[in-house]
Amino acid sequence: MHELRTTRRVEFSDTDLAGVVHFSRYFALMESVEGEFLRALGADFTLEHEGARLGWPKAEAACDYVSPARYGDVLDIHLRVQRKGNRSVIYAITFRCGEREIARGRTVSVCCAAQPGGGFKPIRIPEFLAARIEQAPA
Amino acid sequence: MHELRTTRRVEFSDTDLAGVVHFSRYFALMESVEGEFLRALGADFTLEHEGARLGWPKAEAACDYVSPARYGDVLDIHLRVQRKGNRSVIYAITFRCGEREIARGRTVSVCCAAQPGGGFKPIRIPEFLAARIEQAPA
Amino acid sequence: MHELRTTRRVEFSDTDLAGVVHFSRYFALMESVEGEFLRALGADFTLEHEGARLGWPKAEAACDYVSPARYGDVLDIHLRVQRKGNRSVIYAITFRCGEREIARGRTVSVCCAAQPGGGFKPIRIPEFLAARIEQAPA
Amino acid sequence: MHELRTTRRVEFSDTDLAGVVHFSRYFALMESVEGEFLRALGADFTLEHEGARLGWPKAEAACDYVSPARYGDVLDIHLRVQRKGNRSVIYAITFRCGEREIARGRTVSVCCAAQPGGGFKPIRIPEFLAARIEQAPA
Repeated sequence: MHELRTTRRVEFSDTDLAGVVHFSRYFALMESVEGEFLRALGADFTLEHEGARLGWPKAEAACDYVSPARYGDVLDIHLRVQRKGNRSVIYAITFRCGEREIARGRTVSVCCAAQPGGGFKPIRIPEFLAARIEQAPA
Repeated sequence: MHELRTTRRVEFSDTDLAGVVHFSRYFALMESVEGEFLRALGADFTLEHEGARLGWPKAEAACDYVSPARYGDVLDIHLRVQRKGNRSVIYAITFRCGEREIARGRTVSVCCAAQPGGGFKPIRIPEFLAARIEQAPA
Repeated sequence: MHELRTTRRVEFSDTDLAGVVHFSRYFALMESVEGEFLRALGADFTLEHEGARLGWPKAEAACDYVSPARYGDVLDIHLRVQRKGNRSVIYAITFRCGEREIARGRTVSVCCAAQPGGGFKPIRIPEFLAARIEQAPA
Repeated sequence: MHELRTTRRVEFSDTDLAGVVHFSRYFALMESVEGEFLRALGADFTLEHEGARLGWPKAEAACDYVSPARYGDVLDIHLRVQRKGNRSVIYAITFRCGEREIARGRTVSVCCAAQPGGGFKPIRIPEFLAARIEQAPA
């Protein structure tokens, strides 16, 4: 699986005084959809693997804002695996509202194992999961 | 003025279950510091100009995460005007905690006038403000 | 209609370093469900009425926390109209996760018309909407 | 010490499309000030005590909203220990902006020890800290 299409409704608390979705909220939405993608593969952000809890901290995140989204809009969100590495996944995520393009985001998520004393250590993506995450065709 | 140095304390509500500052929160912090910079220039996010309320919606935002920040950390934040255009400003913002580099962010803020029926229209940065925003030396 | 049953999935960004949903997030969830209730009645938070945009600012909000909710939990949420006044509605909202009670909330939402210069003025709930909002039996 | 006076500036990301501070944000502000109070007593939300990390989850939280706060307002916040129990503290927190009363909040924070497998167990407030937390005169 290399992509997921889903929707999210803009909530009142997503908006700011400019009447539109606050630019920082798109990042929380990207992560929400990334979680939905991992669940569809039988994993999730809090998967246990070989005795450790896995996590997917971000190494990078970016978003281009094309058109504002407003309260009540239902956003069509498309997540695509742009690149699958050994220890990380690059996601490209687009937001649309009907015909209107809203935003284009990108996150680099690193597969990590939570360390006993706190902190995270990058590890190879577990095989069963790596096998299920496909890279989107170029 | 082309830069600002300030601090922000990590709040409990900035953290997530991984025990670190949630990656989306850096964007709210960048904006908070951008507001502080504009205030230091005698402006602010909600400046009135020629009968219209100005705003600075983001055209782009990005962040590279180098090292996690935790509850109670006091972040040293450095904002720098990387490029001043006619209608937009590119800010480079770095986060440090003591010796440790935490994150490097970037936002492209577009000077806009709020429209009567809602929405924003890009305009030239008002002269008095443009004169005070200097571009950082390369 | 005097009640609504719905669900919300806990998002990663809802959690804090204690590993549980941050106590402030329940209020955003309550509002999200209040919006869903109003939509089911043919209204919404941004309804236009007699030339003015309506809003439902809160006069009071409260929550009792019974048991923590965690990332990935799907919360069963039950909203009930505890009291319908002329200008306000009191909602009682309960959160459960399976058999486990999570939280009990309460908001007092005041029907207001947005004023031209900014600000909100309490008004009577529009008749068509008042007729659809029923008070729950005691 | 039984009270603390401090200030917080309203951030852009605290506001919603109604142009005012979102009602859920007051709870994050209350917690921020509670943290400042504990720090002033030589403790903090993540204090270690007898080998366990302490936490202060909320058993209850409530807020009455008197007047809206807007972007750029600097809020005068007054936290007072309304009641000190063996295992919990009830805080009364008021928000003002100049002469204008904004909101009155209340949280019940329970002193807990983080458990090895996750979760929190209420414990007596450590003596050194209990000695420093005074109850406000009635």
